[in-house]
Amino acid sequence: MTRRDRGKPGFRWRHALALFVASAVGIAPLRAQQPTPPYGDTATAIVKAGMRQQGAYKTLALLLSAGPRLTGSAQAEAAVELMARHMRELGFENVRTEPTTVGHWVRGDKEEGRVLSTRFGNVPVKVRALGGSTATPGSGVTAPVLEVRSLDELKQAGDKARGKIIFFNRAMDPTFLDTFPSYGEVAGLRHGGAVEAARAGGVAAIVRSLTLESNDDPHTGSMEYDPAVPRVPAASISTLAADRLSEILRADPGARFSFTTSCRTLAPVVSHNVMGEIRGAEKPDEIVVVGGHLDSWDLSPGAHDDGAGCAQAIEAVRLVRELGLKPRRTIRVVLFMDEENGGTGGRDYARSENRKGERHVAALEADRGGFLPLGIGVGARGAAFDRFKAYEPLFQSIGLQWIRPGGGGVDIAPLADAGAVLMGLVPDSQRYFEVHHSGIDTLDKVNARELELGAVSMALMIYLVAQEGV
Amino acid sequence: MTRRDRGKPGFRWRHALALFVASAVGIAPLRAQQPTPPYGDTATAIVKAGMRQQGAYKTLALLLSAGPRLTGSAQAEAAVELMARHMRELGFENVRTEPTTVGHWVRGDKEEGRVLSTRFGNVPVKVRALGGSTATPGSGVTAPVLEVRSLDELKQAGDKARGKIIFFNRAMDPTFLDTFPSYGEVAGLRHGGAVEAARAGGVAAIVRSLTLESNDDPHTGSMEYDPAVPRVPAASISTLAADRLSEILRADPGARFSFTTSCRTLAPVVSHNVMGEIRGAEKPDEIVVVGGHLDSWDLSPGAHDDGAGCAQAIEAVRLVRELGLKPRRTIRVVLFMDEENGGTGGRDYARSENRKGERHVAALEADRGGFLPLGIGVGARGAAFDRFKAYEPLFQSIGLQWIRPGGGGVDIAPLADAGAVLMGLVPDSQRYFEVHHSGIDTLDKVNARELELGAVSMALMIYLVAQEGV
Repeated sequence: MTRRDRGKPGFRWRHALALFVASAVGIAPLRAQQPTPPYGDTATAIVKAGMRQQGAYKTLALLLSAGPRLTGSAQAEAAVELMARHMRELGFENVRTEPTTVGHWVRGDKEEGRVLSTRFGNVPVKVRALGGSTATPGSGVTAPVLEVRSLDELKQAGDKARGKIIFFNRAMDPTFLDTFPSYGEVAGLRHGGAVEAARAGGVAAIVRSLTLESNDDPHTGSMEYDPAVPRVPAASISTLAADRLSEILRADPGARFSFTTSCRTLAPVVSHNVMGEIRGAEKPDEIVVVGGHLDSWDLSPGAHDDGAGCAQAIEAVRLVRELGLKPRRTIRVVLFMDEENGGTGGRDYARSENRKGERHVAALEADRGGFLPLGIGVGARGAAFDRFKAYEPLFQSIGLQWIRPGGGGVDIAPLADAGAVLMGLVPDSQRYFEVHHSGIDTLDKVNARELELGAVSMALMIYLVAQEGV
Repeated sequence: MTRRDRGKPGFRWRHALALFVASAVGIAPLRAQQPTPPYGDTATAIVKAGMRQQGAYKTLALLLSAGPRLTGSAQAEAAVELMARHMRELGFENVRTEPTTVGHWVRGDKEEGRVLSTRFGNVPVKVRALGGSTATPGSGVTAPVLEVRSLDELKQAGDKARGKIIFFNRAMDPTFLDTFPSYGEVAGLRHGGAVEAARAGGVAAIVRSLTLESNDDPHTGSMEYDPAVPRVPAASISTLAADRLSEILRADPGARFSFTTSCRTLAPVVSHNVMGEIRGAEKPDEIVVVGGHLDSWDLSPGAHDDGAGCAQAIEAVRLVRELGLKPRRTIRVVLFMDEENGGTGGRDYARSENRKGERHVAALEADRGGFLPLGIGVGARGAAFDRFKAYEPLFQSIGLQWIRPGGGGVDIAPLADAGAVLMGLVPDSQRYFEVHHSGIDTLDKVNARELELGAVSMALMIYLVAQEGV
């Protein structure tokens, strides 16, 4: 769009610009200036402070300076220290860490792949070991390939799988409006593909990266073995490489795939959750948790997964402090270690001795990327849910679209047993799987305003719950 | 997030991933599988075809291959030809152009700026002439600087403005949830700053770029002269350069600014709107227009402003054709020339002789960037609006959040006199002013899924109106 009405006749274009600006003001979700009682003024103040100060982005940049934060890594421990110091510098109370024993898988330094075809020659292919995989022998695995799109197809192949590298080449379905269910449909091939490959007599599993993008960046992620089934190595290849391999196999069914990885699973190590809080003025032992997970995969520093959630949780509490609000209940940031490799941080937080004497009222997690927030999912039913739903106009006044029934997140799930209402921030998902578990989940993929809008919504929700209970 | 439940016991992490996926499915706006009668199946079919085929992104890539499309430029004319050919190849009916006479301003090849300070030395500053500006003399303009944040501040400065370069340094307000009103607040300084500078006795105007980003990329945009006031040259500088200049002026109020531009306004030229349609099966003379503007600024190819709207409009009609739908009324794509430099294309379309015998029922424009669509603004009142509001659940089933009262766009505004209901697609605005009128409004800033979701929504709306009227 274009020009600006200066309110004077004789300006050739004033009509057009006036139309543009007027229509934009009229229809867009700008309602921070029309607060809803009784927390309307608070909501507006949170928005104004957040959007002006952009604290979430600053915290995220600081966190990402630690690098990728795979559980057990030196970077993960550096991030623990960094975030504890940051929360202290922000003036949070009771900043501390709590131990949690985490898995320690390392990628190693050798990852190589290629297609060997009599017709197409040697075609190099980037491979990335899946988290938890064993390494190939030092000389690699080389075998003919069986391409399948599902576990059923693998089962139906019967003996044809024997001695083969099983190539799970199922693309994410682009027709879902929300990309998470599309991920959910195919993530099992990555997670369990190696077991099923071995069960069918295969010698290894390679998996098409779980992204809707067409590029040459392989995404990693978890896989898992079954104690009853031999362990075969598993790796991902990029979507473009998967398409190319499929084409080659159509033209040359005898083509072989060859890859080498040097990953290893070491002994578990003691790592830490990081916590900081605003002590409740009236009911300090009633806790509202807000958090994300501090660990990430190792290919990039996990800006969206889940640096964003950690930064937003810290920012939400910083905003409550910044405005001088004195919550009745305690608001606690928890940065959970080890969401990606087993969820031990969330479980250990919930069952820690330190929880005795505490009552967890509610917990809000952000672990779906730092994109434009659309709503908050609330895991409550009946009258309890209705109470949250009544806040919807208030949240709409600060840019969210809705409050809906929904879940929380992996890290806070263990708090359900203690009676906490679990909530999850729900941002738009269109871009999430571009970066998820990839080599490009970096700070430049995060928009500071989108990130802050999430933090602002989280600040309001935790403050409301700290004041009003559930 | 992480792992996938394989539905088998013994898998250590299955509980965590099951929780994650279940909660994602529960709360996200995934309802394409739950169609709303009577157009629910059509809506679902449009989504599935659109998200699978990603036609909007393909059309956008083609359009941007023409380069920046400033009115009067060879690239703009090339884009006319390119889009006409593209619509013919897509099978659109009655593909044609209609003439419109447009302004022809050219930037020239010299743009240089610097601060001259006894204390800080010579500090180079990127400048970009504003569209419509006269050039500086060949030797440039060099003068002391008066920094102001508003026209009022300029007026209050009185004689202090005399002989100065007036530096309009008002930042966009980051606290608006919607960035358009924030733009609306300051766009007048860019558009009318040169006139007010000259009226106050100033020798030139330089304007802080209208973006919420902090970077060194100056944004251009329109400016305009008043026939009663001397013409002084106007240029923009980046937000970082504006901050730096302001700092220098605080420390060294005598610092001068110097800049040279070589832009020129040439004689108007005849350009063209581009049209193509699906002829209505029952009421061919009743027209539903869908469009965007084909021209852009010259610093980049205008991917979001408004290549996106053009591509979405074409894609919306392509999807209606793709599904074999036979609309009762005629659906017409119009790619309007010259939104940025006067809106002549929209006016000439509305008053063309060719409109005789046609009745324009409604028009839908997309000119707010190709970002995640949130809703559609509909310029109707009372019962007429209620009829559109009744479609809201249907649009929510394909990912939109709402139907609200609102306006259309600059190009379709002249159709209001003919009784057309004007509508505008409203995407999220958080990222728009990063790229708007800048050197970085390029294809890589567009997410194909976000773009397509807009096109899908537009396809459904134009089809509904073509079937049901207003």
